Amino acid sequence: MAVKKIGRQTIKFSSPPSILTTASIVGPKEGQGPLADYYDEVLEDDLFGEDSWEMAESKLLKEAVTIAISKGKLKIPDIDFMIGGDLLNQLISTTFAARDLELPLYGLYGACSTFTEAISIGAVLLDGGFADKVIATTSSHFSTAERQFRYPLELGNQRSLTSQWTVTGSGAALLTSSGNGPVVTYSTIGKVVDLGITDVNNMGAAMAPAAANTIATHLTDTGRGPEDYDLIITGDLGKYGRDIAVELMKKEGFRIVKNFTDCGIEIFDDKKQDTHAGGSGCGCSAVVFCGFLYRQLILKKIKKLLLVSTGALFSPTSFQQGESIPGIAHAIAVEMKGN
Amino acid sequence: MAVKKIGRQTIKFSSPPSILTTASIVGPKEGQGPLADYYDEVLEDDLFGEDSWEMAESKLLKEAVTIAISKGKLKIPDIDFMIGGDLLNQLISTTFAARDLELPLYGLYGACSTFTEAISIGAVLLDGGFADKVIATTSSHFSTAERQFRYPLELGNQRSLTSQWTVTGSGAALLTSSGNGPVVTYSTIGKVVDLGITDVNNMGAAMAPAAANTIATHLTDTGRGPEDYDLIITGDLGKYGRDIAVELMKKEGFRIVKNFTDCGIEIFDDKKQDTHAGGSGCGCSAVVFCGFLYRQLILKKIKKLLLVSTGALFSPTSFQQGESIPGIAHAIAVEMKGN
Repeated sequence: MAVKKIGRQTIKFSSPPSILTTASIVGPKEGQGPLADYYDEVLEDDLFGEDSWEMAESKLLKEAVTIAISKGKLKIPDIDFMIGGDLLNQLISTTFAARDLELPLYGLYGACSTFTEAISIGAVLLDGGFADKVIATTSSHFSTAERQFRYPLELGNQRSLTSQWTVTGSGAALLTSSGNGPVVTYSTIGKVVDLGITDVNNMGAAMAPAAANTIATHLTDTGRGPEDYDLIITGDLGKYGRDIAVELMKKEGFRIVKNFTDCGIEIFDDKKQDTHAGGSGCGCSAVVFCGFLYRQLILKKIKKLLLVSTGALFSPTSFQQGESIPGIAHAIAVEMKGN
Repeated sequence: MAVKKIGRQTIKFSSPPSILTTASIVGPKEGQGPLADYYDEVLEDDLFGEDSWEMAESKLLKEAVTIAISKGKLKIPDIDFMIGGDLLNQLISTTFAARDLELPLYGLYGACSTFTEAISIGAVLLDGGFADKVIATTSSHFSTAERQFRYPLELGNQRSLTSQWTVTGSGAALLTSSGNGPVVTYSTIGKVVDLGITDVNNMGAAMAPAAANTIATHLTDTGRGPEDYDLIITGDLGKYGRDIAVELMKKEGFRIVKNFTDCGIEIFDDKKQDTHAGGSGCGCSAVVFCGFLYRQLILKKIKKLLLVSTGALFSPTSFQQGESIPGIAHAIAVEMKGN
């Protein structure tokens, strides 16, 4: 059989699946950021009417999925598979939402890289003829992430300047085997890369090597150059991680500066919003893609996009045991046809 | 395009991928169990030469992957994708192993259902023409699971009779698009099912509804009856969960008793080994499949197998917030041709 894999880590879709609709819903802080106009919903209160932030995050994900499906004029049972994950242990945001939605679930964990991992598996299911409609989704929440990964918020710890602000939000993308939306043409699956970073307040540095590796591999596998994309955008490297990634790519022979940015940089105005290095979390690249970027694709302001969600595989357990923080990044190429 | 999905939740593979080789490696206790003869390796010490149980678990997974690949007379770079996960937060067993193996990774989380989820995605990648060789793997470790999900082992807590013993072990299956091994013919992706169980010492009860739902859906989707399988085996319901699943399936119109058992029941001799309700963990169905069951398929003592790995989506966080414990189960049909 003709293998649709090219190079070492890249899948080329023979019938590129369409992203029919997207939905994004964010917390109050994200709603005050520069991309505010592009979200479907902005919460007034990050508890979203729930008793815990965890259940609020799960409700965000359920809401994003529901909006994306209804925008496609479909009903929940029309969807073949739900594919997704979140940052919380045992994926409680995703699994409690999947329970209520009653959809068959492929649960994923790739830290903040999960959004593009979900799009990749969704596109594989569609292009391979295993499904006709799938929903890919992730979420994160500032308050659930802080208390799981760092300290109780009540402690009021000071945040270092390299620290990032976990995005409260969820994005969902409805993928179909045919349609007029932007299409997923390539997917480059990342390796776990670890340059020995042990600073838990500098996730950007932990993820930058994986991002650089995946982008360089994608360009090598596809024979494309950085200039073939209108925009190459990473998930949540933040401003320090972005600079490290630029340097690392230069060492691999790719000069990527002009058309390269990061969802974590774009989502907040760090001067006004005190978010330090930028946004982060599974929800970061999800809401930036499902809000702002998807709109640019529909308007054909961006015609070729490389989205590279980036994950720091930070475990408080292994970190306390003296291990470093590895990273992983998965890329998807999304393209819009026509003038 | 002809959709390879049948019924509500089932994929039918058009060119069923082959399970070329498997490997299994277990801890000392598992090595004293009834299936001891079928493992590739039995550890003398569950620290496996490492400083922590977590790093020992990661080494188990890496070792299982390495053995499975070498049995196939292949080298690690011959593998297109690694697909897998484990029970530990942030999948540290899997991601640290993937870092060392330098393989592109699809990280999954489905609690103890992850093994069949990995086989499902692996078979999708192969049957869809996206890869030629993939490795599907999971692991678990008694000591890492106890301290993450329950209590420090040093406390010496008494174990209730419905509690299960997390298997220390890892299994890996090397799947190829063609070959003479047993083939994966169907995959039924489970929904998250929750009947409101809140007893953290009775995971079998939490998982049984999902297992019954997936098996009933599989039989309905495929038009098969329980008697079409030589064996239907769940992942880690244990003896109480198994009985609940039998009752629940009866309510759905399926009488499954004779050819139905559970990996968690088979892996230990509960009378001699004091394992109470049975084995559990991501590694349980993985090592029972990669050891005993795979051998029975090769010997054609079992020709049609339905493996249903079962996961309790137990989160200490959501549990402390008063939430119940949902379950999920994914099924794969594995068949061996010839007399």
